[in-house]
Amino acid sequence: MALIVQKYGGTSVGTVERIQNVARRVKLRRDAGDDVVVVVSAMSGETNRLIGLAHEISEHPDLREMDVLVTTGEQVTIALLSMALHAIGCDARSYTGAQVRILTDSAHGKARINDIDALRVRADLKAGRVVVVAGFQGVDEDGNITTLGRGGSDTTAVAMAAALKADECQIFTDVDGVYTTDPRVEPRARKLDRITFEEMLEMASLGSKVLQIRSVEFAGKYNVPLRVLSSFDEGGEGTLITFEEEGVEAAKISGIAFNRDEAKLTIRGVPDQPGVAYKILGPIGEANIEVDMIVQNIANDDTTDFTFTVNRGEYDKAMKILQETAEELGAREVIGDDKIVKISLVGVGMRSHAGIASRMFETLSKEGINIQMISTSEIKISVVVDEKYLELGVRALHDAFDLGEAEE
Amino acid sequence: MALIVQKYGGTSVGTVERIQNVARRVKLRRDAGDDVVVVVSAMSGETNRLIGLAHEISEHPDLREMDVLVTTGEQVTIALLSMALHAIGCDARSYTGAQVRILTDSAHGKARINDIDALRVRADLKAGRVVVVAGFQGVDEDGNITTLGRGGSDTTAVAMAAALKADECQIFTDVDGVYTTDPRVEPRARKLDRITFEEMLEMASLGSKVLQIRSVEFAGKYNVPLRVLSSFDEGGEGTLITFEEEGVEAAKISGIAFNRDEAKLTIRGVPDQPGVAYKILGPIGEANIEVDMIVQNIANDDTTDFTFTVNRGEYDKAMKILQETAEELGAREVIGDDKIVKISLVGVGMRSHAGIASRMFETLSKEGINIQMISTSEIKISVVVDEKYLELGVRALHDAFDLGEAEE
Repeated sequence: MALIVQKYGGTSVGTVERIQNVARRVKLRRDAGDDVVVVVSAMSGETNRLIGLAHEISEHPDLREMDVLVTTGEQVTIALLSMALHAIGCDARSYTGAQVRILTDSAHGKARINDIDALRVRADLKAGRVVVVAGFQGVDEDGNITTLGRGGSDTTAVAMAAALKADECQIFTDVDGVYTTDPRVEPRARKLDRITFEEMLEMASLGSKVLQIRSVEFAGKYNVPLRVLSSFDEGGEGTLITFEEEGVEAAKISGIAFNRDEAKLTIRGVPDQPGVAYKILGPIGEANIEVDMIVQNIANDDTTDFTFTVNRGEYDKAMKILQETAEELGAREVIGDDKIVKISLVGVGMRSHAGIASRMFETLSKEGINIQMISTSEIKISVVVDEKYLELGVRALHDAFDLGEAEE
Repeated sequence: MALIVQKYGGTSVGTVERIQNVARRVKLRRDAGDDVVVVVSAMSGETNRLIGLAHEISEHPDLREMDVLVTTGEQVTIALLSMALHAIGCDARSYTGAQVRILTDSAHGKARINDIDALRVRADLKAGRVVVVAGFQGVDEDGNITTLGRGGSDTTAVAMAAALKADECQIFTDVDGVYTTDPRVEPRARKLDRITFEEMLEMASLGSKVLQIRSVEFAGKYNVPLRVLSSFDEGGEGTLITFEEEGVEAAKISGIAFNRDEAKLTIRGVPDQPGVAYKILGPIGEANIEVDMIVQNIANDDTTDFTFTVNRGEYDKAMKILQETAEELGAREVIGDDKIVKISLVGVGMRSHAGIASRMFETLSKEGINIQMISTSEIKISVVVDEKYLELGVRALHDAFDLGEAEE
């Protein structure tokens, strides 16, 4: 008998019928003798509907009240799922984040979990009940309702699993696991049975948006075995995300992530002085624009070139700020390109294997793909290329590193 | 400077625009120097939408989960109203029933308030904030979400006013006060400036559905001055419902209530034995059918006739049960009529003035209206007549007791 925490997202509970499907699935697990805690999101579309109401009233609604508003979304789902469980003869009880109680700090809209008091949950499990918990929400020390930020239901599930010392935390999504790369780009992409937390972190942040990053960090921190499964495919085993490197496939590379959503900006001929990086990126950060890759070439005479990438949607805003900065710094010019993509190789095997980078560059070169930027970390290598090469680059790398399905 | 509790129902907060209107109205009061606590219902239609979702899942949804579900309705309203107040520069903070905290018993769907801990509310008022409280909901000792039953937002408002020792509890509705009778039936109906709690209780239970009965009882118990006002008419003073008889208009009769929604059933030739009333009404009560008027005539030989009225919607169900009972008791026959109405005179003045009943019967008789049943209490006299006489009867009585507007 195991203790399993399952998390179902907004699409999986998007209609009454789907909620009833989730109930059946939970009951199967319960009937098999396991204790089950279910974490659910708001029905798909509901959170946006609520945010829409708020924006009819105010462009910048009060964050405390925003949390009071949007948390009603999951509260509706927990009630309906509990009813659906009762309807098929499975005893269940729902809890809001405040009821559980999931204690967070007071950062409305992006709170972090400090503690979970799972006493009532344990009592219910002991009494044979399924426990249904509202994802994404908590309560601060003063009893104010908080949210963990959008998509935070994954974090709730992992945190519940950690607090209950669950045997596994299962995240149900619309994909059946983590793939070596996006199957829509490379049809030979293969589902991984296992992946390490570190690799998953790199895959997630690089655009394989299977899981919320924070939930993966959380799972790693508390050693919670995490499994990604499909809500719609009942037989699948999904992908287990593990904190043990042993047992992970021996491959040097686990997968290829990519991000279509990038734009790059370059400021050229900046006087090469200490603090110049801060002077350039400070105003960008103040405007709440997130910077992804940063590359600074060595100085040429007394000036240097400085390039960074941002989310494509913030390209115009960043360009305007950078032009002002260039004027202040007396830089030669500002250029940019919002037709670029980032492709990344990810794998813990990379650590101990030389030559991965050179094989990557060789592969791209053979296909005539020009590399515009390079950035590396211990377990990944990222390159920026023209967006027209995305599919070609991903497929060539997938092939070069033998990531595809074994031919039979 | 006064402390005012205002309650706005579902129609008054039915759209974003209406919520913004309520915010403006609250701010006016606040700007005048008063402390304001606002109790709100769910946006009109929302509670029914949620109940509809539940019924898609189960015919008899679990009551605990039903409360978790429907309380999201008011939670949405408190957040939006607080945002609307912020948007016009009025500091405000929202509270769910659990947050306030409104402590109730555990009778889900029809809980009663045991206690209110208004500590946080007082602190907010002191800090110059408007406090926005979700009506209709509370929390039991174990932290489970409860509801006071539909329409219970009035009760929340009165209970908050009692707990805070507020100077007045103002209930905003779609009428501008309590009238001597329904103006749609008698255009000369006059708005009352004041009415006593007892009269209001009789008016409410008799079909003048301005306020929820329980909230009026509550107000009486805790001596909370209650005022009914229109949400849409800004100038009006409404009707003050008071617990002092002095100052109330000296009229013997305050108003005429009526109920179109009645049906009567008669069981004839029942053996006149002790316990026969219980044998007849027991099965009706067990079927959750509410009985209104009950009349038993004195026995004729060894048998008696027994008549009672029920809500018209439950006539068929009651008839079926009564026919079974009649067979068991060996009664002669069962007859019924679902085309009847009840008309009632209400007034505390009735206590000290003889002749009210006889003038009522005389008035109806002059109009050729046959009285089918009569029932009296200390401050009301009710008669049942054929439904076709409703308007004629109400107008004739309104005139006979000088309730209309003074002619100028």
